[in-house]
Amino acid sequence: MKIILDAMGGDNSPYAVIDGVALSRKKDSQTQFVIVGNLSEITKYINEKKYDFSDVQIIDAPEVISCEESPTVAIRQKKNSSLVVSFDMLKNDESIDALISTGSTGAILAGGFLKIGRIKGVSRPSLCPVLPTKKGTNVLIIDSGANVDCKPINLCHFAIMGSIYCKELFGIQNPRVALVNVGTEDTKGNELTKETYKLMQKLPINFIGNMEARDTLSGDYDVLVCDGFTGNVLIKSIEGAASFVMKELKTAFKSSFKAKLGAILAMSSLKKLKTKMDYNKYGGSPLLGCNKTIIKSHGSSKADTILAAINLAKSYTNANINGKISDAVLNMPDICEVENV
Amino acid sequence: MKIILDAMGGDNSPYAVIDGVALSRKKDSQTQFVIVGNLSEITKYINEKKYDFSDVQIIDAPEVISCEESPTVAIRQKKNSSLVVSFDMLKNDESIDALISTGSTGAILAGGFLKIGRIKGVSRPSLCPVLPTKKGTNVLIIDSGANVDCKPINLCHFAIMGSIYCKELFGIQNPRVALVNVGTEDTKGNELTKETYKLMQKLPINFIGNMEARDTLSGDYDVLVCDGFTGNVLIKSIEGAASFVMKELKTAFKSSFKAKLGAILAMSSLKKLKTKMDYNKYGGSPLLGCNKTIIKSHGSSKADTILAAINLAKSYTNANINGKISDAVLNMPDICEVENV
Repeated sequence: MKIILDAMGGDNSPYAVIDGVALSRKKDSQTQFVIVGNLSEITKYINEKKYDFSDVQIIDAPEVISCEESPTVAIRQKKNSSLVVSFDMLKNDESIDALISTGSTGAILAGGFLKIGRIKGVSRPSLCPVLPTKKGTNVLIIDSGANVDCKPINLCHFAIMGSIYCKELFGIQNPRVALVNVGTEDTKGNELTKETYKLMQKLPINFIGNMEARDTLSGDYDVLVCDGFTGNVLIKSIEGAASFVMKELKTAFKSSFKAKLGAILAMSSLKKLKTKMDYNKYGGSPLLGCNKTIIKSHGSSKADTILAAINLAKSYTNANINGKISDAVLNMPDICEVENV
Repeated sequence: MKIILDAMGGDNSPYAVIDGVALSRKKDSQTQFVIVGNLSEITKYINEKKYDFSDVQIIDAPEVISCEESPTVAIRQKKNSSLVVSFDMLKNDESIDALISTGSTGAILAGGFLKIGRIKGVSRPSLCPVLPTKKGTNVLIIDSGANVDCKPINLCHFAIMGSIYCKELFGIQNPRVALVNVGTEDTKGNELTKETYKLMQKLPINFIGNMEARDTLSGDYDVLVCDGFTGNVLIKSIEGAASFVMKELKTAFKSSFKAKLGAILAMSSLKKLKTKMDYNKYGGSPLLGCNKTIIKSHGSSKADTILAAINLAKSYTNANINGKISDAVLNMPDICEVENV
């Protein structure tokens, strides 16, 4: 297994990536690594930390693609950026199995699409992050923002890819797939979800119907399907609400002496809660539907997150998820009788 | 001021409505009330509670419209339902200023549209609930689910109506209006938000740009504009996430003796937090854009919520918000050069 890491573009670049690789190498000496980024910064940090990275390939590519740039323009023009160099190596070097980046989501999507290409039959590659649930299980949200305007067939592909990924990643034999909607009744929804509902019933997945957004974290669903605009609003609303409640809680705990004392006593339990809710532990999200393993890790990733992303890249590749997606999409029933769905 | 209340269709019907009216009458003997619903149930409860409702008009309409029914069919056919009777009285009796219902949202929308009608120039009436923010202010979400498929012009009307409502309700002179989107940059979004962004810049409102869903409760915005599908996902995600965190917190507090003791000490501060986050205190949401005051109150409303809804109906009517919306929409600049936006 050989993994290439774009060391730039994240909040803690390139240090988090280097530390993450070091953590992984402590536990697994088999996996090979290529780190791409500002060579002098990277080697300086490796020397400072006294890491033995003699068999890690470091590629100099000092340019960085920022989140403000147009993703497609940047991928086409910034040939010396750490992300483009990483994608070019992933494309041309057959020994490289996977790519990890904490950089611009849009640029990673554009790179996956333009440089690596889609799995045959998949209409749209998609990002699919994981959230924790009330029941201690996990739930996948697909799409989470890659595709802001979707047709029903795109959502069907998301459902198939999400179902396969969930099965392989969490060992769930028959993942419960639901469509994010404004009500649970099958007549509810906008034009997109109403049409998608009909098609999803015909797919070879465990489609259990519509779900209202308030039940996202209920643990009653394994895979939630939606267009990328909705997925983005869903995930960011949850993030914002959780941060709101935690902040209010902090204020409540500081509001009186008794409350402060209470907070100190409850501290270790509260810390466990914080860990449970930390979605960085998942490492990131694969770009499902592309021809190689591509992991988008959070911009604020620290060493632990990068380690988790490396482990995700390994298990994703070892489980041959892309091959399984390819088979499933090619063998998909002909559900789209109406043109242009 | 005369207010008609649909006493049926909520979780605590008809008791919450009756108790709510009683609470209001304690503080304000001027407002007149009409209560519509199951006459024998209502009078039995009034007698039990020994309320002096001698000058409250009670109208018998025992049929109830459920949330499972098709709203338009129910409004057209269930002529003896409490909601249809209420709407008919609101329409035909000029002395009645406002209607309050805890019943089916869809049926209230359909009733507003079919029985009362839109304010001239408003393309779509809209529901607009209020959420609390980190800074202690409030934020309006428009549309929250009434219109699941929207065009840019609909969102422009939402922005104008939300801005007026916010100004009148909270006394904010120049409400900060933002468009819910997947990024803050003006190039971000799906087809709908990209086109809406351009139009909203031309409106006579304080449009401050795009907002990502994670900042909904930041307190940096007063009015958030989106299509009803997005608004529904936004609000329900926040509701679900807050409930998730509170449940996890409860578990954390129960996990050890020390944590339990801590919770007891912090209890009064935590209760204050719960009150702060309780959106029932707002009473409900007006159906903005209809020709009379129509308040949709939460299905789970208790007496306190009904009292808040009555106060909302009064201030909404007294501020002549419908008149102001009518003026604003008729005097709107001609922003739509392209047909069918």
